[in-house]
Amino acid sequence: ASAPRPIRATLFPGDGIGPEIAESVKQVFNAAEVPIEWEEHFVGNKVDPRTESFLTWESLESVRRNGVGLKGPMATPIGKGHRSLNLALRKELGLYANVRPCYSLPGYKTRYDDVNLVTIRENTEGEYSGLEHQVVRGVVESVKIITRQASSRVAEYAFHYAKTNGRQRVSVVHKANIMRKTDGLFLKCCREVAKNYPDITYEEVVIDNCCMMLVKNPTLFDVLVMPNLYGDIISDLCAGLIGGLGLTPSCNIGEGGIALAEAVHGSAPDIAGKNLANPTALLLSGVAMLRHLKLTDKADRIHDAILNTIAEGKHRTVDLGGTSTTTDFTKAVCDHL
Amino acid sequence: ASAPRPIRATLFPGDGIGPEIAESVKQVFNAAEVPIEWEEHFVGNKVDPRTESFLTWESLESVRRNGVGLKGPMATPIGKGHRSLNLALRKELGLYANVRPCYSLPGYKTRYDDVNLVTIRENTEGEYSGLEHQVVRGVVESVKIITRQASSRVAEYAFHYAKTNGRQRVSVVHKANIMRKTDGLFLKCCREVAKNYPDITYEEVVIDNCCMMLVKNPTLFDVLVMPNLYGDIISDLCAGLIGGLGLTPSCNIGEGGIALAEAVHGSAPDIAGKNLANPTALLLSGVAMLRHLKLTDKADRIHDAILNTIAEGKHRTVDLGGTSTTTDFTKAVCDHL
Ligand SMILES: CC(C)[C@H](C(=O)O)[C@@H](O)C(=O)O
Ligand SMILES: CC(C)[C@H](C(=O)O)[C@@H](O)C(=O)O
Repeated sequence: ASAPRPIRATLFPGDGIGPEIAESVKQVFNAAEVPIEWEEHFVGNKVDPRTESFLTWESLESVRRNGVGLKGPMATPIGKGHRSLNLALRKELGLYANVRPCYSLPGYKTRYDDVNLVTIRENTEGEYSGLEHQVVRGVVESVKIITRQASSRVAEYAFHYAKTNGRQRVSVVHKANIMRKTDGLFLKCCREVAKNYPDITYEEVVIDNCCMMLVKNPTLFDVLVMPNLYGDIISDLCAGLIGGLGLTPSCNIGEGGIALAEAVHGSAPDIAGKNLANPTALLLSGVAMLRHLKLTDKADRIHDAILNTIAEGKHRTVDLGGTSTTTDFTKAVCDHL
Repeated sequence: ASAPRPIRATLFPGDGIGPEIAESVKQVFNAAEVPIEWEEHFVGNKVDPRTESFLTWESLESVRRNGVGLKGPMATPIGKGHRSLNLALRKELGLYANVRPCYSLPGYKTRYDDVNLVTIRENTEGEYSGLEHQVVRGVVESVKIITRQASSRVAEYAFHYAKTNGRQRVSVVHKANIMRKTDGLFLKCCREVAKNYPDITYEEVVIDNCCMMLVKNPTLFDVLVMPNLYGDIISDLCAGLIGGLGLTPSCNIGEGGIALAEAVHGSAPDIAGKNLANPTALLLSGVAMLRHLKLTDKADRIHDAILNTIAEGKHRTVDLGGTSTTTDFTKAVCDHL
């Protein structure tokens, strides 16, 4: 019998430390014999009018064709007349839900040792509408847009995620006591979806209170779902609880079942090319991509190897107070496979 | 020589546990011989058309006349046709800055033992404009308004506060990478004010990153200033770091130098009238009011008595895992004076 045809996936190594941590993923996936063939795409050096950004149309076509991709950090060039790379990707690929599991890593000690939650962020509208104007001098307005369609879609995703991942509870984060209509609509959509999931506990929590509860006792939460900006804030807060964006995976779910996993940390230009970057977030995002592809055995194996490497504590990169290089860490993960 | 004329201050005991914790403040202030005469005002039982809320016009006139007030928690009655009590107070008294010092309390252990910062929140506009509409069914919009006037005013307050309180640094919290115009204007106003305070370090931090840094290492911050909603979120997050809203003072600064100090926790109807409430937040808010009145000696004395009572750890109310009553705790503070 011939070997199964490899699955094609798009890889955006990204900028700064991106290529180094992408290399780490390639090596670990190779060592684990993951049947994936990467289609590498780089950020262009001029604005592509079809994406209104430095992303090439071809790279987006690649993700659309493959249905899955993995993305390193991208630094949006400064200047006018183009969109942020992250925002362009979300828009063009209809990436409506940003999913970030966040759990304490045994062996990497923070003030919290008991975090285990997932933030699900609406990723297409809300405070990110881009609609701003100034009519009267010195009086500026931004418009936040909440739609029934996007709210129901992300709510449905959150409950489905909870159900299929053995999670018990979905908490909606909002500020409907102030934004009665916009956040009110978001809540309403979540309530409607909740009715179809009688086995999942449903609760609503105001964002200010949510942040206070998260820092006091993060075990109070399981799955959190929320509008765009709250998701931006809460997901980073949660990452902080377990050590930072260098350690947390992220996966964006798009229209037609597209999944674009990504490391959400920065491109760290100061340490780029020095073999110092921590590949953990991109590796774990790669694992998320494998789970999406239902390559569960491979995902579990790589996940365990990463966590065991961290737990062992011998190979710690500079950002975590260690002296290991990217290649040391990568080799250790491969050895743990 | 006759005794100096007492200073008149407005007291809103508020709802739920409000009257009990207000009683605690009165007793401690009496014991410390604070030269204050309280004008007590209660929330009305019908909407006053002049305030569009259950607040009486007379109570607002009292704060305006006295220039200072102290406020317990108020539960806004549910229903239509009136404004939230907190929002009505902010609007009618022009309370443009909400100031919340947040510091670790020796003796009350949390995951953080080194917090010492102050959040200063713009309190009148931003996401709290109340402007929302739905034109197309299923598409709702809220308008965020940032003005040069309100932004400059709160920025000026923050820098002045830093300078007069021996603080070294002011960090502006924003999301101007997304809300370029509104948060951009807020930043611009802060930058302009910063130029007049060359001795204060000025920095800008994006809200998502700020939350992550706060939970990782709150000592990175000193004074934080920000638009309304970010202030709502960050101030509660910070309160969570040191134990919760039951322990943090708050003071609102208004037009014409009005100061309305307040406990920002809820009215806790479940324990109201049971002598179980923790009066710490209202007591510390009372201290903030005394500082505003330049009654520094009295403020210091009461502040120390509160902190020593907490540090001693013998009189801990139920919310902090103890068994002391409100009156026990109050007596202990008086004994420490
Ligand atoms: C870089 C920025 C536009 C982006 C966002 O706000 O969404 C980032 O914070 C993120 O969470 O991916
Ligand atoms: C009750 C609510 C309207 C209020 C706010 O959002 O401002 C509260 O959270 C606060 O911080 O005082």
